[in-house]
Amino acid sequence: MLGCDTVADSKLSSEKLKSFCITLLRQVDVPEADAEIVADNLVSADLRGIASHGVSRLPIYIKRIQLGLVNPCPRPRVIKATPTSLLIDGDNGLGQVIGFKAMNEALALARAQGQALVGVNNTNHIGIGAYYALQAVREDMIGICLTNASAHMAPWGGIKPLLGTNPIAVAVPAGDFPPVVLDMATSIVARGKILLAAKKGEKIPLGWALDKNGNPTEDPNEAIHGSVLPLGGPKGYGLSLMVDILAGVLTGAFFGGHVPSMTEDFTSKLNEGIFLGAFKVDNFMPVEFFKKRMDQLISELKDSPKAPGVVEIFMPGEIEYKCSVERLKAGIPLNEEVRNELNKLAKSLKVEEEI
Amino acid sequence: MLGCDTVADSKLSSEKLKSFCITLLRQVDVPEADAEIVADNLVSADLRGIASHGVSRLPIYIKRIQLGLVNPCPRPRVIKATPTSLLIDGDNGLGQVIGFKAMNEALALARAQGQALVGVNNTNHIGIGAYYALQAVREDMIGICLTNASAHMAPWGGIKPLLGTNPIAVAVPAGDFPPVVLDMATSIVARGKILLAAKKGEKIPLGWALDKNGNPTEDPNEAIHGSVLPLGGPKGYGLSLMVDILAGVLTGAFFGGHVPSMTEDFTSKLNEGIFLGAFKVDNFMPVEFFKKRMDQLISELKDSPKAPGVVEIFMPGEIEYKCSVERLKAGIPLNEEVRNELNKLAKSLKVEEEI
Repeated sequence: MLGCDTVADSKLSSEKLKSFCITLLRQVDVPEADAEIVADNLVSADLRGIASHGVSRLPIYIKRIQLGLVNPCPRPRVIKATPTSLLIDGDNGLGQVIGFKAMNEALALARAQGQALVGVNNTNHIGIGAYYALQAVREDMIGICLTNASAHMAPWGGIKPLLGTNPIAVAVPAGDFPPVVLDMATSIVARGKILLAAKKGEKIPLGWALDKNGNPTEDPNEAIHGSVLPLGGPKGYGLSLMVDILAGVLTGAFFGGHVPSMTEDFTSKLNEGIFLGAFKVDNFMPVEFFKKRMDQLISELKDSPKAPGVVEIFMPGEIEYKCSVERLKAGIPLNEEVRNELNKLAKSLKVEEEI
Repeated sequence: MLGCDTVADSKLSSEKLKSFCITLLRQVDVPEADAEIVADNLVSADLRGIASHGVSRLPIYIKRIQLGLVNPCPRPRVIKATPTSLLIDGDNGLGQVIGFKAMNEALALARAQGQALVGVNNTNHIGIGAYYALQAVREDMIGICLTNASAHMAPWGGIKPLLGTNPIAVAVPAGDFPPVVLDMATSIVARGKILLAAKKGEKIPLGWALDKNGNPTEDPNEAIHGSVLPLGGPKGYGLSLMVDILAGVLTGAFFGGHVPSMTEDFTSKLNEGIFLGAFKVDNFMPVEFFKKRMDQLISELKDSPKAPGVVEIFMPGEIEYKCSVERLKAGIPLNEEVRNELNKLAKSLKVEEEI
């Protein structure tokens, strides 16, 4: 097993992985610049240790393009504008492309007006929300990214999956410390982790999901056809619902049970929605002063007494940041099954290169 | 026990309870208009079935006014303004007064600009956040209210209470259905529920809190001196931290471990912060169309198959709404201990009236 794991975890440079993703995306008519955005987003996730949202998702993205369910060359357009908000039709493009461009629009507005809200409809799976929230942090703004997702979670008290695991991402600049980045599914775990467990042939803990009859299950394959459980019962249900209202109902995207399964429904486009927010820190106080206060809060939390067995107290996003720094140097350990799938995909796309 | 509970639950009209609260607040120099705001907020909580944030809090508010720790007659002022945001110094007023007025300022800005963010520092416990978020809903806006609170929750991996149970409230208008109102502490339960259990002499479930040494406890009195556990472990910790960053760090209020205990620290003012947001639904789509979409989502969730034993699937805030409608007619069942405490307080304030 150890040898097998070592093989599975052989490391690849992020640059090589990115360039491989770009090559594959180019084969299905994704323009170079757009392919770079998608590859950067996916590899960022792998750098941050979020394998569930990394390059393991590329095969399904490409499959949906090949089936004509995703537009490889979208022209997103603003369909409603106010001085501080935009509504954008994503033209059924890859979520990463549309999300990145929409957040850039939000930042342009927020630069001028202090803050901006941007709703997006008619788009697809966006990968990690942290990516977009961090776009704002680079301009000393606070960034927010919400997206609704395929319906895999039942409402509290129900058994039919009618809500996504609708994630919430918020990123905040700090001073000497890395930005604080919360990026969490509103389910107990991201469904991507269940998909990855299925891919790896591993069990999932009881309490993560129900099977299609509403019974608790440890089998990720049963869970995939059942319902993921919300974070903390009714509270996670409430958070997921609010994300769906903002990213889905308010943007004109599909919502609730109408968002198809990306991995199982090959007849309908996803029409997912994104809700992005950005606002300047210096609306409220000078940036340098804010960063000092952030550093103080972070220090005080990190330096506080630890529970037995705990070596370090982490800020949200800190583990991912450190992982990213490490993997930029040492390379990304890629699961062997994911690697094989990507190589198989490359072959089918007449790409000779392998990873 | 049943007889005792029945006595404990004898009912009072909301109007009588409100007028009694106003009378008591007037005795400690709270102006009539401000006393009405506080009373309306507290009684709203009791109407909604949130006894932990209702009139049971009045004694501690009044005690802090009497000790000179809360300003009964504040003059909140804007200390920083942009076209879409305000930072307000709450002049150490009662949180309900400052929160209500600050949300009105946010709504005035949002009416003109489409959206607004308002930060508030130098204020006190605000009661239920839903109250302020609902102010926005009455103007067909979406309302958000975040506030930081006395440090009662340890960071994930820590044992020292350095974060509040920092609640999140979001309210959204619907059409034929009542507004959807999420109002949740980022702890497993609101600390108010632990306080109420202590007041009632009831045990709390394991998993709600740790004692001061970091051990799980069922004793609410041990929990009060220990640490409340976050919702869903690291995720609730992350949410609580984000609320503290927005409501505390960014507003100039106290943050983290610096927010004193309202119920135990009688030497320092609280200097809590509030972060309020409001934006127009019609920034994105016509209000009537949005409400139709909301009603569709709500119907589809409520009409979906239920888990065994579940009679009805509820929207966030629906139970509270129905409770409120019922109690407006039938009266509010007031816990006997709370009633005795209020009557004792009245006597000490030379008020002859009793409830």
